[in-house]
Amino acid sequence: MTLKKTTNPLLDEDELSLNLIEAQYLLRNTRGQNNAKSVLVLVNGIELAGKGEAVKQLREWVDPRYLLVKADAANMFNNQQTYWQPYANSIPAEGQLMVLFGNWYSDLLATALHVSKPLDESQFDAYIADMQAFEQDLKNNHVDVVKVWFDLSWKSLQKRMDNLDPHEVRWHKLHGLDWRNKKQYDSLQKLSQRFIKDWNIIDCEDEKARNQQFAQIILAAMKNCPEHVSEVKSKWKPAAVPELLLHPENQPTTKEDYKKELKELSVKVAEALRFDDRKAIIVFEGMDAAGKGGAIKRLVKNLDPREYDIHSIAAPERYEKRHPYLWRFWTKLQTNEDIRIFDRSWYGRVLVERVEGLISEHAWQRAYEEINRFEKDLVNSQTVVIKFWLAISKDEQATRFKAREETPNKRFKITPEDWRNREKWDAYLDAAADMFERTSTDYAPWHIIANDDKNTARLEILRAILKQLRAN
Amino acid sequence: MTLKKTTNPLLDEDELSLNLIEAQYLLRNTRGQNNAKSVLVLVNGIELAGKGEAVKQLREWVDPRYLLVKADAANMFNNQQTYWQPYANSIPAEGQLMVLFGNWYSDLLATALHVSKPLDESQFDAYIADMQAFEQDLKNNHVDVVKVWFDLSWKSLQKRMDNLDPHEVRWHKLHGLDWRNKKQYDSLQKLSQRFIKDWNIIDCEDEKARNQQFAQIILAAMKNCPEHVSEVKSKWKPAAVPELLLHPENQPTTKEDYKKELKELSVKVAEALRFDDRKAIIVFEGMDAAGKGGAIKRLVKNLDPREYDIHSIAAPERYEKRHPYLWRFWTKLQTNEDIRIFDRSWYGRVLVERVEGLISEHAWQRAYEEINRFEKDLVNSQTVVIKFWLAISKDEQATRFKAREETPNKRFKITPEDWRNREKWDAYLDAAADMFERTSTDYAPWHIIANDDKNTARLEILRAILKQLRAN
Repeated sequence: MTLKKTTNPLLDEDELSLNLIEAQYLLRNTRGQNNAKSVLVLVNGIELAGKGEAVKQLREWVDPRYLLVKADAANMFNNQQTYWQPYANSIPAEGQLMVLFGNWYSDLLATALHVSKPLDESQFDAYIADMQAFEQDLKNNHVDVVKVWFDLSWKSLQKRMDNLDPHEVRWHKLHGLDWRNKKQYDSLQKLSQRFIKDWNIIDCEDEKARNQQFAQIILAAMKNCPEHVSEVKSKWKPAAVPELLLHPENQPTTKEDYKKELKELSVKVAEALRFDDRKAIIVFEGMDAAGKGGAIKRLVKNLDPREYDIHSIAAPERYEKRHPYLWRFWTKLQTNEDIRIFDRSWYGRVLVERVEGLISEHAWQRAYEEINRFEKDLVNSQTVVIKFWLAISKDEQATRFKAREETPNKRFKITPEDWRNREKWDAYLDAAADMFERTSTDYAPWHIIANDDKNTARLEILRAILKQLRAN
Repeated sequence: MTLKKTTNPLLDEDELSLNLIEAQYLLRNTRGQNNAKSVLVLVNGIELAGKGEAVKQLREWVDPRYLLVKADAANMFNNQQTYWQPYANSIPAEGQLMVLFGNWYSDLLATALHVSKPLDESQFDAYIADMQAFEQDLKNNHVDVVKVWFDLSWKSLQKRMDNLDPHEVRWHKLHGLDWRNKKQYDSLQKLSQRFIKDWNIIDCEDEKARNQQFAQIILAAMKNCPEHVSEVKSKWKPAAVPELLLHPENQPTTKEDYKKELKELSVKVAEALRFDDRKAIIVFEGMDAAGKGGAIKRLVKNLDPREYDIHSIAAPERYEKRHPYLWRFWTKLQTNEDIRIFDRSWYGRVLVERVEGLISEHAWQRAYEEINRFEKDLVNSQTVVIKFWLAISKDEQATRFKAREETPNKRFKITPEDWRNREKWDAYLDAAADMFERTSTDYAPWHIIANDDKNTARLEILRAILKQLRAN
């Protein structure tokens, strides 16, 4: 296969510079607009092809205040984190231009070529498919991903290696593969053919042309800021509301049985979580007053706060809104916490944001698949994802609201808005139904727990956690 | 020494809960006000004293959405990062309440008691002095630091160990010291006497009293939100403006000599930076058009962008302003980048923010010592801090401004505001003079480089970097 290389005519350098600067302002000015976007440039290719020089030249041509460059040494894939986790903080916000070398492709190539157990072709292709889907999600969430491959022939590479002084050779070896090894070079070129069909390929024999091609690719990306399309192509097929949501009655447990079982189960759950080699993410969703807080309290009963984190999720902050909506969760997952509990979660996208009309139909309809991919990546990196919907009846909610209003130190939990939200009760049920149908996967199933009787529900939650931990 | 333990009378639980919730709202409402503050609670003490239970009970009493809890395993001191670096992201923003167990004290104690080469008393005391100064800086920047020590007698500790089931024992061992070792317990108690004079000590024999004391300490901290004092006690003693700033003339270098020397020096600098075991932070400050960008370009000439980061520092974002002003630099320094270049820096606090009157006199006068401590911590954690002031004359600036205006792709660098800023030329010189006098330390000296002739200046900068790298 011969790949078509990018060959734009060379421009006058001052003119190119001016165009780049104007495009930077254009891009920045999309912030908060209906064509808001950012540009993420992934830079990969052959060592000594001149990626670094091209980036430095770019910095000369643009307004450097508005060019972000991030470059890290390779992170070998280790099954402990997803391929995007090391880069979550490098995903640019609306209006930003980020050049990222050191990215998931360099990590994949380093892993594929380096480790004692190299990846086979099907594993490699599976990663590529995942990455391409992730990049499509980024694009749909207004992060334009531009991929640039710096190509160089074996002959030229060897000539450039010959011209390095010994110190530089050492450095270039540190950060990559052995570029004197023809077999490795050929393997890399062969592997690259498996994914660079949609990349911009730059022939790096000529340095000046190389720098210009790179800048022109970025210029084109920055200038291309169309209005976001929010048209929905096909008619939405709503799911039926599960019976359990319409009738969330459950059998009450006697106080005595509850106490005894709670004690036993919470010890078991604590031990199961504590000694599981995987990380755990436990999500609680449900209507206001559905009992999320009470369930969490029982769940952590026999855990020490040093063993878990509880994230209470409210509306996103302004700076978080300038990123893909999942970004604030990506960044929360970067540290190596073993047990994470979410009191509300990323499902807000297809619940409150959908029902309250905060986002376009287009956006929430797309979100189900984005969430599924997100959770699949987590599960593939040694994480158990356990999701609960706590179901209560509208009458029971009213009873609990009134009880809260009558208890001084619970009153903060209830506002006029909570009463108003009851008018949208059915819309929330519809949204929940769609959510179950589309995001209850074999790797991260939903548990719907009838919660009109809190105690029974709490025991059920603990049993469900135990069961899922033991099953996978 | 017998320490006085906290003994507030016990309150009715519902009343305490209500008070806590009201205090949380009070604290949140300080945001953006003249009494803005946050509360950072450091939790330490004897294992099994019940820190975790007290935090869990606190969560029951407060509005959990506005309680942040962060708990990490101990980070052993390793000389590669400062003691505050692992916690930079856990410093609360205005209006927030953060409980941090797992903090610099637990790290210090774990390091002091655990490593093969334990800390001697003078090292230990030096760390404590640094930490207390850091906490005072936090306090001055509106992060109220509340320290709580959970105390438990050896006898009670052993009794509680007896009652643990074997799994729990395993877990408690994982995360700390050997609590069956009387000698270690005594060492810890002895060490603690060296720093807990200003702590809140909670006697943890009685669980209910313990939880209440803890909550009441936090309640008192949240309720105490006085207006910030911005009175300046003593008259400011301005420094004399260095001669070099008034006459930044330098000898021009011939074009030939410049090219030759630049090539040699930039290779040497690249190698010196690359193969130094320490990290490097290189700061550029100076008037507009002083040549910071050009100097940086030459500095990185023989480095690959994967080896360095360039941070272009502009005015802080809104969410950054809710933190201590150094916070946005603390968080930038968390990753393990070897070479960091700052195009403007934390010195903005005593330059633009001072001269433009963006902060109180009180705040900028305090900043010099805060910055010195910050840089000292960096130097102590294997970092070379190299600082440049590029000096140009007012006439030379005007010449460069005009040249920028006449070059289409340089025009973005110049705005009407830049011309207006010239009116404050002398005020900036005064601010720079004070900055040199107060922040040019033996561990992080300022280099003032006359820059009316750019080429000569660029060579001088490279020579200064080489010299400082070789000297330390």
